[in-house]
Amino acid sequence: MIGRLNHVALAVPDLTEAAERYRTALGASVSEPQPLPEHGVTAVFVELDNTKIELLEPLGADSPIAAFLAKNPRGGMHHVCYEVSDIRAARDRLVASGARVLGDGEPKIGAHGKPVLFLHPSDVFGTLTELEEV
Amino acid sequence: MIGRLNHVALAVPDLTEAAERYRTALGASVSEPQPLPEHGVTAVFVELDNTKIELLEPLGADSPIAAFLAKNPRGGMHHVCYEVSDIRAARDRLVASGARVLGDGEPKIGAHGKPVLFLHPSDVFGTLTELEEV
Repeated sequence: MIGRLNHVALAVPDLTEAAERYRTALGASVSEPQPLPEHGVTAVFVELDNTKIELLEPLGADSPIAAFLAKNPRGGMHHVCYEVSDIRAARDRLVASGARVLGDGEPKIGAHGKPVLFLHPSDVFGTLTELEEV
Repeated sequence: MIGRLNHVALAVPDLTEAAERYRTALGASVSEPQPLPEHGVTAVFVELDNTKIELLEPLGADSPIAAFLAKNPRGGMHHVCYEVSDIRAARDRLVASGARVLGDGEPKIGAHGKPVLFLHPSDVFGTLTELEEV
């Protein structure tokens, strides 16, 4: 069911500094910062040869990563995102297995303009897990 | 400098249960458990279309993931691993940028039989980061 790893999201306290570190010290190709106000984050995409890393900084008062950074002030690994071809079929299979979908259980339009949902971390061994329909 | 994302490592408290969940609920292709006593873990490789997830369970008394699981008993995201073509050149570039390499600073042979090193999480925004020479 799950296909490609779409991205790994890393929360960082200072996106400008993090992007510069990835560019200079790790020699990675990094995008300009992309404000995504409807998702409460500003993102920098680190393009790897086979997938991407998303560096996320809170944007606005209700950022979904604010609590994470309050708990992990230096930053940290926030979530992984797997691609699926049919997100409702994936959701139904997961729910039937006992996994919980965050929110009202319906896919939302994610940061890439495609349907996404998040599984409850406790049902996937502590890793916040996003599914994206591609 | 960094090329492919080689893997994302997720620590889990029960590898058998986690592998079965990834196989059945997420529909992923999972390997048999691989005991890696010299690295203090047993690993299950979740093969995705573009990279892999490594599910890790502690093995032995001095497992490097035991403290992480004591702090995160349900499991969680442990590290990311990027591929580099010359690990000593990568190390020198990172050290020149102010990043610290864990241990004595020399690459070791990792779980895939190739030279690896780990960067101090505080120098990469809280994410434990492995480099592997391929």
